[in-house]
Amino acid sequence: MNNTQRLDATFAALADPTRRAILTRLASGEASVMELAKPFAMTQPAISKHLKVLERAGLISRSRDAQRRPRRLEARPLAEATGWLEDYRQFWEGRFQRLDALLGELKTNQLKTKEKKRGRRDR
Amino acid sequence: MNNTQRLDATFAALADPTRRAILTRLASGEASVMELAKPFAMTQPAISKHLKVLERAGLISRSRDAQRRPRRLEARPLAEATGWLEDYRQFWEGRFQRLDALLGELKTNQLKTKEKKRGRRDR
Repeated sequence: MNNTQRLDATFAALADPTRRAILTRLASGEASVMELAKPFAMTQPAISKHLKVLERAGLISRSRDAQRRPRRLEARPLAEATGWLEDYRQFWEGRFQRLDALLGELKTNQLKTKEKKRGRRDR
Repeated sequence: MNNTQRLDATFAALADPTRRAILTRLASGEASVMELAKPFAMTQPAISKHLKVLERAGLISRSRDAQRRPRRLEARPLAEATGWLEDYRQFWEGRFQRLDALLGELKTNQLKTKEKKRGRRDR
């Protein structure tokens, strides 16, 4: 897989709440398929299907332990996806700042209007 | 759409190189469908399909201009997807640091082995 294909596979794998929950679980340590299946109201084959998608994207791998075959989280695809999104941080932070400034202006204007009204009443 | 559904839609929309390229283009300013289609060897209906996916995910919106209907990039879904991935930064940075340390150790060991060999030769 090249960079583009890896990003495709990573984002596609992240587009599912069960798969995201599996990754969250694995961030705190290795786990077997049984352990991973426990919190979900899902059959083991359904979980295995999700694990295959994650594995193909390189987001998880199998550890050596032949009996349990625990899955572990892999760092690289997560780092690459973060890297892609990181380029847009400046864009959305800029937008939010402009929104903040706009809200600030609206508040100031509201206060001014209120003061004017109060001034008129007090006259 | 709730938070989970929005993340699903955002990551699914990002899982395509054409759609990512469209977002990259829009990060530098609004563009019409014609302008967006230009760099791709694609029919306009094919591009429109991609735009629909991006629109449904809330990643882009249409500006007021009734004639051109230019598309603009929206900040929120990008910020939310970055937010989700941000929680894993500690994990992968930790992994890379351990990897760095491991590589450092390997280098030191290699140097030691070389020095030993040289020492033996020099004897």
